[in-house]
Parts: sequence; C-alpha cells; structure tokens
Amino acid sequence: MCSVIYTAAKFSAALFCSQSSRKSKSFISAASIHLRKMVHYLTEQRGRPNSTDYRIYLKTSDGKYISPFHDIPLYVADEQECGVPPKKIKRNEILFNMVVEVPRWSNAKMEMATKEPLNPIKQDVKKGKLRYVANIFPHKGYIWNYGALPQTWEDPNHTDKETMCCGDNDPIDVCEIGSKVCVTGQVIQVKVLGILALIDEGETDWKVIAINIEDPDASSLNSIEDVRKVKPGHLEATVDWFKKYKVPDGKPENQFAFNGQFKDKDFAVEVIKSTHGYWKALVMRKKMKGDEIVCQNSSLCDTPFKCSDAEASAVVQAAAEYGEPLPVSSEVDKWHFFAK
Amino acid sequence: MCSVIYTAAKFSAALFCSQSSRKSKSFISAASIHLRKMVHYLTEQRGRPNSTDYRIYLKTSDGKYISPFHDIPLYVADEQECGVPPKKIKRNEILFNMVVEVPRWSNAKMEMATKEPLNPIKQDVKKGKLRYVANIFPHKGYIWNYGALPQTWEDPNHTDKETMCCGDNDPIDVCEIGSKVCVTGQVIQVKVLGILALIDEGETDWKVIAINIEDPDASSLNSIEDVRKVKPGHLEATVDWFKKYKVPDGKPENQFAFNGQFKDKDFAVEVIKSTHGYWKALVMRKKMKGDEIVCQNSSLCDTPFKCSDAEASAVVQAAAEYGEPLPVSSEVDKWHFFAK
Repeated sequence: MCSVIYTAAKFSAALFCSQSSRKSKSFISAASIHLRKMVHYLTEQRGRPNSTDYRIYLKTSDGKYISPFHDIPLYVADEQECGVPPKKIKRNEILFNMVVEVPRWSNAKMEMATKEPLNPIKQDVKKGKLRYVANIFPHKGYIWNYGALPQTWEDPNHTDKETMCCGDNDPIDVCEIGSKVCVTGQVIQVKVLGILALIDEGETDWKVIAINIEDPDASSLNSIEDVRKVKPGHLEATVDWFKKYKVPDGKPENQFAFNGQFKDKDFAVEVIKSTHGYWKALVMRKKMKGDEIVCQNSSLCDTPFKCSDAEASAVVQAAAEYGEPLPVSSEVDKWHFFAK
Repeated sequence: MCSVIYTAAKFSAALFCSQSSRKSKSFISAASIHLRKMVHYLTEQRGRPNSTDYRIYLKTSDGKYISPFHDIPLYVADEQECGVPPKKIKRNEILFNMVVEVPRWSNAKMEMATKEPLNPIKQDVKKGKLRYVANIFPHKGYIWNYGALPQTWEDPNHTDKETMCCGDNDPIDVCEIGSKVCVTGQVIQVKVLGILALIDEGETDWKVIAINIEDPDASSLNSIEDVRKVKPGHLEATVDWFKKYKVPDGKPENQFAFNGQFKDKDFAVEVIKSTHGYWKALVMRKKMKGDEIVCQNSSLCDTPFKCSDAEASAVVQAAAEYGEPLPVSSEVDKWHFFAK
C-alpha cells in the first residue's frame, strides 16, 4: 500500500513542481486540487488561496493531521521506510527534513503559523494586508526554495553568544538551492552546506544553506565552498537579497554578523542542534504562557500538548472551506531597481 | 458597444496580467479560457497548450480573424477610437503597436509563425522539441515582455550598412521593460527608447528597447539614458542575457555590433522605418516564392495576398481544437550558472 502512495506522490510532484504544471492545475477540479500528496506527507488546503483565511494543513499518508512544526522529525531516519530502500548517502552524513514554505521565484510570504493550532502554513499578514516580497532587480521573488527546519526554534529569550542577539521566535530558516521548484507544504530531505547570520531588526535570524538530496548536483555539493564553485554568484546574490528585501517596505538594509561571511557546514549543524534544543524545552514546558507558540501536536507522547487524532481533525474541520483562488494585484509583479 | 468591449478587455487584463491571475484561470472552464480579450484585439487559442499544435490566433473585437504580422498597423493611429479619447502623448511622439510573444519571466519561446497562414503565435520547435530558453543565473526566463513590431521585416537579402550582416527573416524584436507582466498575444502600445544590434549566427537581429505607454514610469522614460537612470543595471543585464542565452544549447556567446553599445531612440526609429519598408515590399510582391513568409492578410487591399473573412475563418477552423494543457518538464526550471 505504501508503494502505491509513493507512486501517487511522484505523480503529484510532476504536477506541481514546475511553472508549466501550474497551468495544468487549471483542469483539475476544485474538489481534487485542495488535496496534495507529498512523498511522506499530504497537504490539505482550506480557505481561498490568496486570502487571509487560506491555510495549508499537513497530514500523514494515512490521513492523520499533524503539525509541520512539531510532528515532522528534524533528522531524517535512516531506516528503511514503507519497503522503499533508504537513499544512498555518505557515511556520517546528517540529513534534515525541510518544510518548504515559499517556492523559488514566487513572492507570497508563506510560513508556518506558529501561533495557530497545528501550525498550518498561511500567508503572513501585515497591517491587514497579505504580504508579498518585492522583486529586487535582478531577482524574481525568492531565489531559493525557502522554508524551515521542523522541531527547531530560535528562542527570543536566548542571546546568541556569536551574534549577541536574541532569536526571532520562529523555526530556523532554510534556503534550498537545488534546481527543482518545490511546492508550498512539500517536505523534502536536505543536506546542510553552510549558514548565514542575518541580523533583522536586532534579532538573530539564521539562514541555513542546504540542497535537496534528490537534486542532480547534490553529490557534488558538500560544503559552502562547493556552492561557490558549482553555482558562482549564488552566495553573493543571497547576501544581496537578504540585505535589500525589506527596503521597498521602507525599512533599512539588513545587517549580518561575521561581516556577511557564510559559516561552514559544521557550524551550521551546531546552530541547528542548539535550536532543536530550544524547541525541545519549548514543547516540554508544563504551562503555556499568553500570546505564545502553539505546541499542540499529534505524535510527541512526552509533551503536555499531544492531542488525539479527533482533536487534530476538529481543528482542520473548523477552518474555512476550500474555495476558488482570489486574484492577486499585478503590483506584485513590479520590479524594484536600486542604484549599486 | 465598444465601451462594453473595453470594459471586458480591462477585466481580461486583470485576469491575465499577473502570476497570481494565472492561478485564477484554474477555475474558468475550458470553454471560456481559450477566448481572451485584449484592448483592441482578441486572441483565440487552438490545440493543446505546451504541445506543438498549440496556436494563438488574433482577431478584431468584431470577430474577424487577422494576421498579427500583417494586419496590425505598425504606427498607433492617434484618432479617437470607439469613443475612448486617445492617450495623452507628447507632441511628435511616435507610438508603435507591439505584439507580445513571451511574457516576462516565462521560458517558452513563443513567436509569430511567419510561414503559416494568418501567422498565429506558436512555440518554436527545434529538432522536434518545443523550445524553452534556459534560466541563466541571475535571470529567470526572459527579463522583459518580449515580442515584435507588426508590419516590419528584417530582409535576409538586404545587407545592413551598419552591421554588414543580412536580416534574420523575421519581424523586428522588441524588449518591453515596463512593470507589468503581459500575456502572449497581447497587443500593447509602446514608446521606443533605443536599440541593440545583436549578431546572431552572422545575421543582424535588432532588439528594440521600448516601454508600454500604460506603465507608471512611461512619462519619465524618454531616452536610453533615462533607462540607465531609472532602471540601473537593466541595460547591462539585457546585453548579458542576449550574450549567453544560447550557451546552454551548446552555441557560442552571441556578438554585438557597435561594441555592444545601445543606439538612441532616433537611430531605433530609423531602423524600424527601414524594416517597415522591407515589409511593404514583401507584401506587395506579385509572386510567392517557395519556402517563404506567408503574407495572407485580412485588411491590406493593395496586396495580392488579401483574403476574405471566410477564408481567414477557414484557416482557424482547420486548426486543432483547443484542449487541456500538457505538463511541462521540470527541466525548464533549471538554473544555469556560468563563471564570470
């Protein structure tokens, strides 16, 4: 049965991974389109796309709703799953799960809703308006598949000893630099290559650089130096992008720790481990404080926040019904130019 | 009645001009989707999108099929049309019609089929395969709305006195640098700003730089120097793009006349006028030669190639019926990197 699911997942990936396939969606009925299958997880859309009530919930292949923030393991288990042999990876290579929030070249700032039950993916809202990142010439939207590592948390009460800044209260961000364009809600397996320490309005906001292990270049990308060789200009573009992306919103240029230099893979893995530690402390707390991260989950038996499948299901059923996408302003297509 | 058409056109423009609106299309039925209305012209899709039989035919707002190559005037008439006052433009400003073939940021090499009756827009085919331009980092697809000026022809039997190369047998190409993302088959009105002389495999292939007169920046863009100021980096990116875009297909870098410098607006208008002259000679010839440009048209009474509305209609009726889009390979999404 699992291999059937896997086949279906492959079909779904083919339908949703490219620009062109977005066109193909036109002819899938509304009834089928809001259910999307990933290799290990399915997504379920609720509300109308391009509206503030739009949500993407995740569930397992057997239909149990989960929190992408808390229920997806940070480390990819290396045992054989569902009869499919594990990916051939180098000895001692650590693989991480990554939740894709924003597909490469798109503009909508989609993110896990940390303060909502089951943490569905939603579009960020600022001053009541859906948030889109500007196209900063020569860039078109986000220049990587952008997302987060599950089971990590940048603790706002912890001052990083390297950057001397507190965390931004979110899971740690990842820029996946592979060739394929992913879909929002897709869970991929990545190899970590390095890390950049963005200082965004005084908060540490680590940006992990990683590659999808399914990418044709994955075997030749094993360090941040390899990225420099195989994808010349991409790291410089990454710094340029993060520096300027809020300027069209009237914000100053972002700053970086370490003079904007990327730290290597080992450093990155240490940062990820520490954010995994903060996350563990978060989900093990006995008491919720007000205005906080919602830790409700479907699988973590040791935590006080584990809920039943029925409770998880009730969360999704209470969300707005899936509906037709709303039109998006052509303002989102504007290209912003800045003198060098 | 005309103003009703105008309103419908506005609606259609809103539906088709942005990334997001492509999503909206998902829920328009196949029956309605293959008819698209522009301000002055309608398009009609035939065949399956993303297949070699896909065609976009143009017609007037009263349903008469036309050739976008021959029947759309090169110069925008300044008289009042359909009760709508003409656009306020500077005295002596020459406006040109432009047929958009490739929307900004897309990859499919769509072009007017010069060798087919009524010259519908189709995707270029090479060695039996649909042609897509590669994404050359940091660029995503075409970096302008790309298309052609109707009623122009780069005569392959004429050696340009400036470049010492013959024409490429096509209408003259235009890069429209405005903020909006256009749609394939859309006819827009542009102001010409300058021109670049690309030498592509030994043929002159002029690239006109222009701006949609509906663009918010149109009034501040009146010369190639203005482009340099208002959109810093865009002209350099344009040269870089044309230099490298065929390299992933195994071709050498393209060359330029005038050392890759852009010529000014007056020079551009002279080149356009000369290609308009070659086009006039083309459509006035008494005899067709074999393997040639098809000059069939619906409106040019003096030419030997004018056809009746019924004949034009028969051409479109003979084309494959509109069908569901085919999926596109995710290979098209690959980003190609070259060392500087």
